[in-house]
Amino acid sequence: MKASRFFIGTLKEAPADAEIVSHKLMMRAGMIRRVAGGIYDYMPIGLRSVRKVEAIVREEMNRAGALELLMPAVQPAELWQESGRWEQYGPELLRFKDRHERDFVMGPTHEEVVTDIARREIKSYRQLPVNFYQIQTKFRDEIRPRFGVMRGREFIMKDAYSFDKDLDGLAETYRKMYDAYVRIFTRIGLDFRAVAADNGSIGGSGSHEFHVIAETGEDDIAYCPSSDYAANVEAADALPLIAQRAAPTEALKKTPTPGAAKCEAVAQLLSIPLEKTIKSIVLATENEGAEPTIWLLMLRGDHSLNDIKTSKLPGLAGYRFATEAEIIEWFGTPPGYLGPIGTKKPVRVIADRTVANMSDFVVGTNEVDYHTTGVNWGRDLPEPEVADIRNVVAGDPSPDGKGALEICRGIEVGHVFQLGTKYSDSMGATFLDENGKPAPMQMGCYGIGVTRVLGAAIEQNFDDKGIIWPEAIAPFEVVICPMGYDRSDAVREQADKLYATLQQAGIDVILDDRGERPGVMFADWELIGVPHRIVIGDRGLKEGKLEYQGRRDTEATLLPVDEAADAVIGKVRAALGK
Amino acid sequence: MKASRFFIGTLKEAPADAEIVSHKLMMRAGMIRRVAGGIYDYMPIGLRSVRKVEAIVREEMNRAGALELLMPAVQPAELWQESGRWEQYGPELLRFKDRHERDFVMGPTHEEVVTDIARREIKSYRQLPVNFYQIQTKFRDEIRPRFGVMRGREFIMKDAYSFDKDLDGLAETYRKMYDAYVRIFTRIGLDFRAVAADNGSIGGSGSHEFHVIAETGEDDIAYCPSSDYAANVEAADALPLIAQRAAPTEALKKTPTPGAAKCEAVAQLLSIPLEKTIKSIVLATENEGAEPTIWLLMLRGDHSLNDIKTSKLPGLAGYRFATEAEIIEWFGTPPGYLGPIGTKKPVRVIADRTVANMSDFVVGTNEVDYHTTGVNWGRDLPEPEVADIRNVVAGDPSPDGKGALEICRGIEVGHVFQLGTKYSDSMGATFLDENGKPAPMQMGCYGIGVTRVLGAAIEQNFDDKGIIWPEAIAPFEVVICPMGYDRSDAVREQADKLYATLQQAGIDVILDDRGERPGVMFADWELIGVPHRIVIGDRGLKEGKLEYQGRRDTEATLLPVDEAADAVIGKVRAALGK
Repeated sequence: MKASRFFIGTLKEAPADAEIVSHKLMMRAGMIRRVAGGIYDYMPIGLRSVRKVEAIVREEMNRAGALELLMPAVQPAELWQESGRWEQYGPELLRFKDRHERDFVMGPTHEEVVTDIARREIKSYRQLPVNFYQIQTKFRDEIRPRFGVMRGREFIMKDAYSFDKDLDGLAETYRKMYDAYVRIFTRIGLDFRAVAADNGSIGGSGSHEFHVIAETGEDDIAYCPSSDYAANVEAADALPLIAQRAAPTEALKKTPTPGAAKCEAVAQLLSIPLEKTIKSIVLATENEGAEPTIWLLMLRGDHSLNDIKTSKLPGLAGYRFATEAEIIEWFGTPPGYLGPIGTKKPVRVIADRTVANMSDFVVGTNEVDYHTTGVNWGRDLPEPEVADIRNVVAGDPSPDGKGALEICRGIEVGHVFQLGTKYSDSMGATFLDENGKPAPMQMGCYGIGVTRVLGAAIEQNFDDKGIIWPEAIAPFEVVICPMGYDRSDAVREQADKLYATLQQAGIDVILDDRGERPGVMFADWELIGVPHRIVIGDRGLKEGKLEYQGRRDTEATLLPVDEAADAVIGKVRAALGK
Repeated sequence: MKASRFFIGTLKEAPADAEIVSHKLMMRAGMIRRVAGGIYDYMPIGLRSVRKVEAIVREEMNRAGALELLMPAVQPAELWQESGRWEQYGPELLRFKDRHERDFVMGPTHEEVVTDIARREIKSYRQLPVNFYQIQTKFRDEIRPRFGVMRGREFIMKDAYSFDKDLDGLAETYRKMYDAYVRIFTRIGLDFRAVAADNGSIGGSGSHEFHVIAETGEDDIAYCPSSDYAANVEAADALPLIAQRAAPTEALKKTPTPGAAKCEAVAQLLSIPLEKTIKSIVLATENEGAEPTIWLLMLRGDHSLNDIKTSKLPGLAGYRFATEAEIIEWFGTPPGYLGPIGTKKPVRVIADRTVANMSDFVVGTNEVDYHTTGVNWGRDLPEPEVADIRNVVAGDPSPDGKGALEICRGIEVGHVFQLGTKYSDSMGATFLDENGKPAPMQMGCYGIGVTRVLGAAIEQNFDDKGIIWPEAIAPFEVVICPMGYDRSDAVREQADKLYATLQQAGIDVILDDRGERPGVMFADWELIGVPHRIVIGDRGLKEGKLEYQGRRDTEATLLPVDEAADAVIGKVRAALGK
């Protein structure tokens, strides 16, 4: 491509609504333009990167045996009513009526449509397994679209849906998709982790998220550097930090702790480690026609409650924090000095796994300005119910026993789910099995946010000059910047020759023949983030040299004119693993 | 591709709502499935053909210098309000509100969005010309979607929009697009014609439609077999059929024609050719605060009025047919025996070009059961206003003077328009010209109905067994049908070997390893329309032969095993022009 025939629209400043670096840089590099909140044009230079992501995704989906089809953006409400999501889905589901007043939605996802295909087309186990995918425009009416393509309303997704005859089949398909995802993000050139995810509201059993590691990520990920264990902090198992409970050594003692309502203050006041203190969290669950059940959850002073784990415990679904009135009624004191010993009314005590193995610990006394030290299970209070109710922290043992966890931040770009029979049950997608009996299909679903990948790649790869694209999804792999293309025959001839050579070698190269000043040229291509740059000037040519600079290099290297093409071709191919 | 890993869903019967052959065959071949009225899934086999059309379109657009981008499906109402189309567009424009009650539309076309891009991004004549295109999903809320992908609601289009600094530039860009369209439809392998089109309601000056010739087409096209002249019948110039008016030879005579109100009856009654009779059509146009103007349009008895040409004549925009009361008031008689001589009140007479050169012709006498024969211009009534007001008919001289017109039916699959400044004016898309003065951009727009092309290709290419795909857009180019793939080692080995050889040669081949009976296999692939089939069986192999049959061949040819691959590769490449 020659720049004079292309469309380059770089900006000096990002618009005010661009909060994060990928949004700013995609706007400044002219990759996207805003049409409405969360709705963008992909300009030619941006679409080149989108298409490269799509091509990699498509190749790997095909390799994994998935079949591409295309489902419509506009879906009839009837299907969503059948699955129950017409009611369940919030206002993110854009609903509208057509000219005949029939209800439709703009598809944010396609479980309903694909299950409708499966129940009509698949009659026999002989047709299974099958895995359909599409690369398609979705719409999700976010209440506050922002972060550019990271949380847009209209976006491109690859979504795949698999149908198997049994759970073994589903597990095998799931593994194939997992492996395909690993290949996809590896080929794109991203630093990523597959993390065990909480299933959230999508339902089913077993799922992984694929996260691009970036400081600006929205999610906290716990991972083990010495193994492949990784999980969303929401879902990571928190093991007991004390393997076995030690025997009591202290006597129970009521100790004044004036003004020390928090564990940190108690530890400081009593000159004990924070790890000896206990945080008491009071929850309530409703009982129809009766007073609520009050729960006391006990965490070590330096730990925090995991909301999702807690709400999965028997009896705690839909819990809320207790009110101050309830706390006074059950504990006889306002919050701040609460503890499990001597409550006014019975409470259900749950101890975190670590707390359950502690001895000689400190709890509130249910009296303002007093704590109790030397507390021991069995001796001073009954053995507790034990559960994993806390968030993991850096340094925790990895659940796979292979080292200590670290915490990093990630951007979710892919998700694989084992849906099971959630949709086949509600929508009646059955097949005749080997015995001629109807059975529900076992479904999986597998998404990649194609346009989101671009944002995530930038969040992971940028500097103060602009984007630094991985070769595989760069809008161009190489830029040739001739200094004086319009003035110097030698420069022009050399630039044209190199351009032709690189093109012939299958390199995605752009020749900047716009006649801009070198400063403008360089700034544009650094902002756009082309990974390899060659500068051709009269001065260098006199010595038979060109200037090569990789986008991450701090300075240029001189290359002999005759070797430049091969050198650059080698670099690009090496980066692409060719 | 192996059929066992693919998804084939042929049907014995088409659904009842499928009226035309392409709809029936696409359903039966399992290419599409209905989701809602005018909304379809493209199943894997159908999507293969869609993608092949897209690839050809993309290659030729790029070759013509157009730049691919991607605009959103969901567009803010503000842009449509600016252009004026928010009001003008009918209920085909799907309007809806987002969760914040803001108005949006599902884009049926993208003039507004692209003009918004141009006015923001293009500041100077140095950035012109530029031509943006996309291949994108559109929605048009048809009142009665039907004919499958031919008149769907959700469909895929390639739409391009060009911006030039002046009309010369627009003409050049237009010509480039026209040429690209010719290459596209030629490569796809369709019998098509580019026809001069009436601009209809889209406005601007100069446009061509690209029609696939098919008996089931919706449009009548006049074309000259001995030149490249072609025009929609609506727009084709109707030349006078009489080069020069002959001198009068008959006297004016009032002749009884009892009961003969139609030209055909008059001709029969008086034993004269229909070409001597005149059809009188009475139109009216309103005059505010005064009585209407009454027009008498005179056509030869065998001709018909062209509504579009008529409404473009000065004073006749918005005309209507006169009421019976008006006819009685102006002509003194009810319809049936009307004529230009001796009206009660003055009427404006317009003669068709042919009528203007007639002599000794027959008109109504404005008296029931009477006509006047031997009528001559100049002698019996004043010279008329002359205009082209009729539809061309087969046998008319071609306007380019190169032969006689024929009429055929066509399916519109592409359209190129010179929009001029319609949108740049209403939306303020200006640039600074060479003199630093703001000027409106000259726009063109260029559409191809990607999914419609599939339907049109089928309407042109089918038989009673099913579809007959042109090689370039066939879901597969070659199918290998082994007889007894699961039973015969020889058959399986030969099939696998041929499959591998064809794949290596870049042929898009499917191996039917499903183990279906030959009758089922053959019927499936004939229905699906794969252009080349090879049958491998034990009996043939014993003689070292395979069976080849082209989809249009009435019987199979035996090919020596060793020559089969080369023969088929040669046939496919020849068909693709490689």
